[in-house]
Amino acid sequence: MKQLFQPDGIAVVGASSNPGKAGFVAIRNMREKGYPGKVYPVNPKETEILGYPCSPSLAEVEGHVDLVVLIMPSRMIYSVMDDLDRRMEEKGDVKFIVCAAADYAETKTPEGIDRQARLMRTAEKYGIRVVGPNCIGVIDNRSLVDTTFVDTGVPFSSFGQPSGITFISQSGALASTILMEGAGRVEPVLYNKFISIGNMADVDFVDLLNYFETDDSTRVIGIYMEGCGNGRELAETLKRVSRKKPIVVLKVGRSALGGAAANSHTGSMAGSDAVYDAMFKQTGVVRVDTIDELIDTLQAFDRLPLPGGGNLFLYSQAGGPGIYCTDAIARWPQLKMPLVSDDTKARLAATQQPMANICHPEGYADITASASVRNHVDGLQIVLQDENVDAVVFITVVPTFLPQEELARELVKMTETTPQAQEKPVFYCVMAGAYTSPARRIMEQAGLCTFDAPDKAVLAAKNMCNYAAFRRRQKED
Amino acid sequence: MKQLFQPDGIAVVGASSNPGKAGFVAIRNMREKGYPGKVYPVNPKETEILGYPCSPSLAEVEGHVDLVVLIMPSRMIYSVMDDLDRRMEEKGDVKFIVCAAADYAETKTPEGIDRQARLMRTAEKYGIRVVGPNCIGVIDNRSLVDTTFVDTGVPFSSFGQPSGITFISQSGALASTILMEGAGRVEPVLYNKFISIGNMADVDFVDLLNYFETDDSTRVIGIYMEGCGNGRELAETLKRVSRKKPIVVLKVGRSALGGAAANSHTGSMAGSDAVYDAMFKQTGVVRVDTIDELIDTLQAFDRLPLPGGGNLFLYSQAGGPGIYCTDAIARWPQLKMPLVSDDTKARLAATQQPMANICHPEGYADITASASVRNHVDGLQIVLQDENVDAVVFITVVPTFLPQEELARELVKMTETTPQAQEKPVFYCVMAGAYTSPARRIMEQAGLCTFDAPDKAVLAAKNMCNYAAFRRRQKED
Repeated sequence: MKQLFQPDGIAVVGASSNPGKAGFVAIRNMREKGYPGKVYPVNPKETEILGYPCSPSLAEVEGHVDLVVLIMPSRMIYSVMDDLDRRMEEKGDVKFIVCAAADYAETKTPEGIDRQARLMRTAEKYGIRVVGPNCIGVIDNRSLVDTTFVDTGVPFSSFGQPSGITFISQSGALASTILMEGAGRVEPVLYNKFISIGNMADVDFVDLLNYFETDDSTRVIGIYMEGCGNGRELAETLKRVSRKKPIVVLKVGRSALGGAAANSHTGSMAGSDAVYDAMFKQTGVVRVDTIDELIDTLQAFDRLPLPGGGNLFLYSQAGGPGIYCTDAIARWPQLKMPLVSDDTKARLAATQQPMANICHPEGYADITASASVRNHVDGLQIVLQDENVDAVVFITVVPTFLPQEELARELVKMTETTPQAQEKPVFYCVMAGAYTSPARRIMEQAGLCTFDAPDKAVLAAKNMCNYAAFRRRQKED
Repeated sequence: MKQLFQPDGIAVVGASSNPGKAGFVAIRNMREKGYPGKVYPVNPKETEILGYPCSPSLAEVEGHVDLVVLIMPSRMIYSVMDDLDRRMEEKGDVKFIVCAAADYAETKTPEGIDRQARLMRTAEKYGIRVVGPNCIGVIDNRSLVDTTFVDTGVPFSSFGQPSGITFISQSGALASTILMEGAGRVEPVLYNKFISIGNMADVDFVDLLNYFETDDSTRVIGIYMEGCGNGRELAETLKRVSRKKPIVVLKVGRSALGGAAANSHTGSMAGSDAVYDAMFKQTGVVRVDTIDELIDTLQAFDRLPLPGGGNLFLYSQAGGPGIYCTDAIARWPQLKMPLVSDDTKARLAATQQPMANICHPEGYADITASASVRNHVDGLQIVLQDENVDAVVFITVVPTFLPQEELARELVKMTETTPQAQEKPVFYCVMAGAYTSPARRIMEQAGLCTFDAPDKAVLAAKNMCNYAAFRRRQKED
């Protein structure tokens, strides 16, 4: 898989100088990211695209090519494969094909099936691995490869360092949405690696999981799944990999109707959802229900240490959101609001205003709307120092008179100077929508993990607790 | 209640010229909105605030005062009430008090209870109605009254016309969040009326529901509720009002723990959740679980016609999101993906690209990533014209090469020229985060209702279908 994510030479068949075409955006994405390797646009009608000289055919690209990206219309696959045959006879260099175009076997038409067969014939003959067809391509934000034709609308320079989140999607549209939703977050999410696998004519979940298992820059693996054929092999792979890294899956086709729709889509059999669900439980896979939960949970795993248990303290600046969050916690038997020591209670009370509610009920504090920055920060530090606390959900609504950027900076400072704040996960819920973006941006840039609603923070906490419990059980065995 | 929402003269006790104080922001909010009535800041240490001359005490305000807003520290309540006594003896004009400050009976301290008792003694003596204490105040975006000290960060001029959404919150922090989350949406939500009722020392849910029942500009009522005492009266009121207008409630204290936290907060007994839940079901109240669902559902009721039944067609531009949405629909037995006529299928197919999936499964179309603006719009129109379709969830991911603003404008145009698009609700899900904000803004400004994820669109659809069924049952009885 190395030549897929760190190829030496990329040829783009169907490259275009027309900014309204996919074959232009793929080239532009690599140019914008500063991909340091060679890019070879292939198009008989062009001489140069964005400064890269164009070749009339794949066979005529002079330099070494590890990766071929196919963005041309699917009906051209026959002549392009003939070209590739010639190239492989002469140079034998290509290791990977990413076939982005649709209108292959997923259509279930004789034409589509035949086109995919033609693609695979050359690939198999020379041992070339194929990603797709019917996908949006591959991204590696460390090697700066980006074969996708997705424009997130956010310039690459606005992103910070790549995260440890690697994502595999069976749907191109879901992949685009995950990329764009990530880009549009308060602090844009830059995925480590990102791959859309479409019809899985060749490269599949198992291949990729095997590779990401030992990929140092992958801390957590996200998957959007409709279904796949090799269930037993997938289960074994998931189980082995999830002992090392968390795997978060959004699996659709929960319902019979959804399964029917999935079958119409990538042609995959979604299979009985109960079978998948049991497989995920046995293999320690974290199954999520929504796109929001997926991205939130991936971010939490990437940024936060695993909790030592399910004792989740709820530290809130406001009563209403605190009660709302208590309900969200009470939904999950694996989470418990813990009894802290009398010493913790006394120290906590000493840092707060007289109106603050300390531990009614246990494991809960409401520091009230009049809480200052110091009230917010000092109390959180004390809670984290209690040995019965495994994790904290922190809520603030940021009242108009609380300096939100100062609060954010002080929380970052406390984290840097408090060992327990680094050893235990804190799920920071900063409510009130776009108003609090400045605070959230400061916190996220410093590596903290923020959420926009208490229920979302609790879902991520629950998912991390489940996975941590799986890891502890694995160690005991 | 008229003098609360359209007062003739507002005195603000605790007004301040310090921009860092609540007593400044309340005055500034009214100035910014252009409240046309008289505003009388009261503060013995100031002479003028934002151009309004200051009075040293409530008794000395010369003009007519319908509404008194109390933002000063709670310990000053004794002298302020003495002042008010003097004023009422002389002028007898005040009809309402909004007591925003906290630190009253909700603290359960003898001091807090005594302060609230002092407030109520004068109020009851003169028949003045009291909102609060421990609340953020009252907004009427038609009369341009705003006694809150919330800064949403969005200038008032950025909001369009007021919506038909009226909101009542028992928690001030939740109220702030609902205001700010609304302000931060793609197209800012401007509430019709907005009231935070805090401790409910006097004005409560029943009083307000009675008023909003006949308030012409209120199309839908939202409530954040922790609990209340007069259960039977509340149930009767909810039942009567919800026959005329939808009522959407976020009721916390679902869990025993949440109930305990609620009791510590506003002192209210959350009571058994099962009792509340049964009451909501019997009275046609739409109960929601999250803040996202609350705002989405309120917007849907405000903007969309009620569906004639639960036949929900799923019209998607992408397979993955389509399957994901099918799962979301299948969760609710009251929703059904309908069988459309052969004629509809043929007409639909004729408007789409050959790769489109028409009605596999029934009630579902996937028009694929290559769909043009015309494919999007024409197919939706045909689906809406089928008599078996009560409502549509429309999904697009907006591929890079689809002109999103043109799509938005064409959808608006189709709605304006298609009777069925005005008679049946369409839940537009425009995915891909901030990237698609330009399209969503055009659609929202034209009165369409957009969502950022399919599951959210389906929740709103389910809530509208439930309420429509309640209304049909009421009519039959």
